[in-house]
Amino acid sequence: MIGDSEFDRDTAVTRRAPGVYDIDLSAGWTIINAVNGGYLLAVLGRALADTLPHPDPFTISAHYLTASHPGPAVIRAQTVRTGRTLSTGQASLYQYDDEGNEVERIRVLASYGDLTTLPDDVRTTATPPPIPPLDQCFGAQDGPTPIEGSSAITDRLMLKLDPATLGWALGAPSGKGEMRAWFGLADGRDADPLSLLLAVDALPPTAFELGLKGWVPTVELTVHVRRRPAPGPLRVSITTRNLAGGFLEEDAEVWDTDGHLVAQSRQLARARLT
Amino acid sequence: MIGDSEFDRDTAVTRRAPGVYDIDLSAGWTIINAVNGGYLLAVLGRALADTLPHPDPFTISAHYLTASHPGPAVIRAQTVRTGRTLSTGQASLYQYDDEGNEVERIRVLASYGDLTTLPDDVRTTATPPPIPPLDQCFGAQDGPTPIEGSSAITDRLMLKLDPATLGWALGAPSGKGEMRAWFGLADGRDADPLSLLLAVDALPPTAFELGLKGWVPTVELTVHVRRRPAPGPLRVSITTRNLAGGFLEEDAEVWDTDGHLVAQSRQLARARLT
Repeated sequence: MIGDSEFDRDTAVTRRAPGVYDIDLSAGWTIINAVNGGYLLAVLGRALADTLPHPDPFTISAHYLTASHPGPAVIRAQTVRTGRTLSTGQASLYQYDDEGNEVERIRVLASYGDLTTLPDDVRTTATPPPIPPLDQCFGAQDGPTPIEGSSAITDRLMLKLDPATLGWALGAPSGKGEMRAWFGLADGRDADPLSLLLAVDALPPTAFELGLKGWVPTVELTVHVRRRPAPGPLRVSITTRNLAGGFLEEDAEVWDTDGHLVAQSRQLARARLT
Repeated sequence: MIGDSEFDRDTAVTRRAPGVYDIDLSAGWTIINAVNGGYLLAVLGRALADTLPHPDPFTISAHYLTASHPGPAVIRAQTVRTGRTLSTGQASLYQYDDEGNEVERIRVLASYGDLTTLPDDVRTTATPPPIPPLDQCFGAQDGPTPIEGSSAITDRLMLKLDPATLGWALGAPSGKGEMRAWFGLADGRDADPLSLLLAVDALPPTAFELGLKGWVPTVELTVHVRRRPAPGPLRVSITTRNLAGGFLEEDAEVWDTDGHLVAQSRQLARARLT
């Protein structure tokens, strides 16, 4: 299934020249009119996997500069350093303004390795987040009619939210900076390191449970991919410790069905305090 | 005191040309022979503060490429984007090999703003870490004679460790991925956003409390500075959830004496599992 799915087709980059890739950003991964930041990170992750000698993003840091829109974009990627077990690269995604000038949307730095070469040991006792079974969680399909044109991305995700973090949808946010869900791709594509970059940025913002409304634009997002995920739905838990001064962090953990912590991420986002 | 201290002198960069800075990396901030990663981040942070129109690092992501040594280095910094409230920049630090070729040590991406312009509100209920009072914590000065030449940095820090996370030093690591300490600069210089970049990477590695020994080299470190710290010693708490496959993350929180969460960081580091 991996390789021939919506996610694979919509993140496919075409090499125009060494380190230069064309991509048509799909309108299928938008929230309102903005292209989802996790989808964009996956697109850049694919370009870097092609540029670097190692296949998997071990740690990838993205600074979001301007809002991306569906349509053509170009990625420029370069190798910064090549090592035996890790290599480091940099990439930027550009779109065009009305005069045809390139406008940079995102810049990333990343260190890649090969997850299949890592030893299998886990030396900590962290446990998966307390999410009820999938059939006791709720998705967009379970709610009232969606707002027209609101979020194309919801059609592409299997996202089932923990009822304990759904208060915001009922007008009663919990006041806690927590959001938890089961996550998968709607067409059943299994998870891989690339789709983990999407998973960490696909849930509603924790700010909703903290009583805020509106867009929470990402300033910077760093993802650590720690292990190849097992097939099956992922559990994603997002927490916010510090909403202050108009910014908040979102920490995500992603667990696979085998009970392994497969990815961790943190982002700094702006909060609209009005 | 800020501006004329060891930390200020040893992080001072000299602009050679626009975006090009010389620095002599001080031997005073080494652990064994390696220059501390937080000190290096502060050096790069100063260069970026000079290059960008905003003064404070809101989020700075560093990928560590090769080990830095005391001695001359050059920094090349550039502006990526300038906005009203945030600007983004990139910088690299280089040293020289035996043939005089530049070798890149670290590359960073950062978004800067002005912490003094942020609203004062805190909307979360996170509390400072449970560290005993400073006089009940222990520093290098309180232990046996230090190993000669081991860590020059200990002379420059006021670092007092929570006895609950000191088991490793007594041969009885707790098995928990936790390290907590009071942190300051030995010469009494107050904390500022730049010294927070040092504070997050100055404690012994949590890996020691997980029973590992030896160096835990940083692959990537991202710091969010959330507020200007009040004068006085800082409380730093570091936690590790996931030591697996030869890597671990270290999450740091830094709290000031006013009870504000002033910085958060996460790093991915390699663990020597032998």
